[in-house]
Amino acid sequence: MSYTAQVVIMPLKELLDPQGKAVLGGLGNLGLGKINDVRVGKNITLQVDAASKEEAKTIAEEAAKKLLANGVMEYFEVTVL
Amino acid sequence: MSYTAQVVIMPLKELLDPQGKAVLGGLGNLGLGKINDVRVGKNITLQVDAASKEEAKTIAEEAAKKLLANGVMEYFEVTVL
Repeated sequence: MSYTAQVVIMPLKELLDPQGKAVLGGLGNLGLGKINDVRVGKNITLQVDAASKEEAKTIAEEAAKKLLANGVMEYFEVTVL
Repeated sequence: MSYTAQVVIMPLKELLDPQGKAVLGGLGNLGLGKINDVRVGKNITLQVDAASKEEAKTIAEEAAKKLLANGVMEYFEVTVL
């Protein structure tokens, strides 16, 4: 069966996020000053062939660890829909 | 009050996603052949000062429309946590 797995990858909270800071500046220039913090990460959806939801999650986590996320600077969360 | 808004931005389903195709090739090389489609988008979290959850959502949607997402190539979904 085919499952859809969503992998959300964000910069670690302890680290600066220069891209987020740049977006925050842009939003301020557009008059959206009520937004006071921005963090930019990735959202990756995978179509996984697996026998069960648990197997699909295991495969998606392996993909995140091996290729999608950089464990030194990012953390990830996997949700199977 | 401060709300956390999550903006997920993905390439439109009708369009090719070359970055996703590249990742799919990489996953195949790593032996993760059970993954048969990948789409890569962005996940942006915003801290929004607003009087209510609804106001926070309106502000986040305005930010997504004006700056974060490119409506020609991408669609977005806003969730206030």
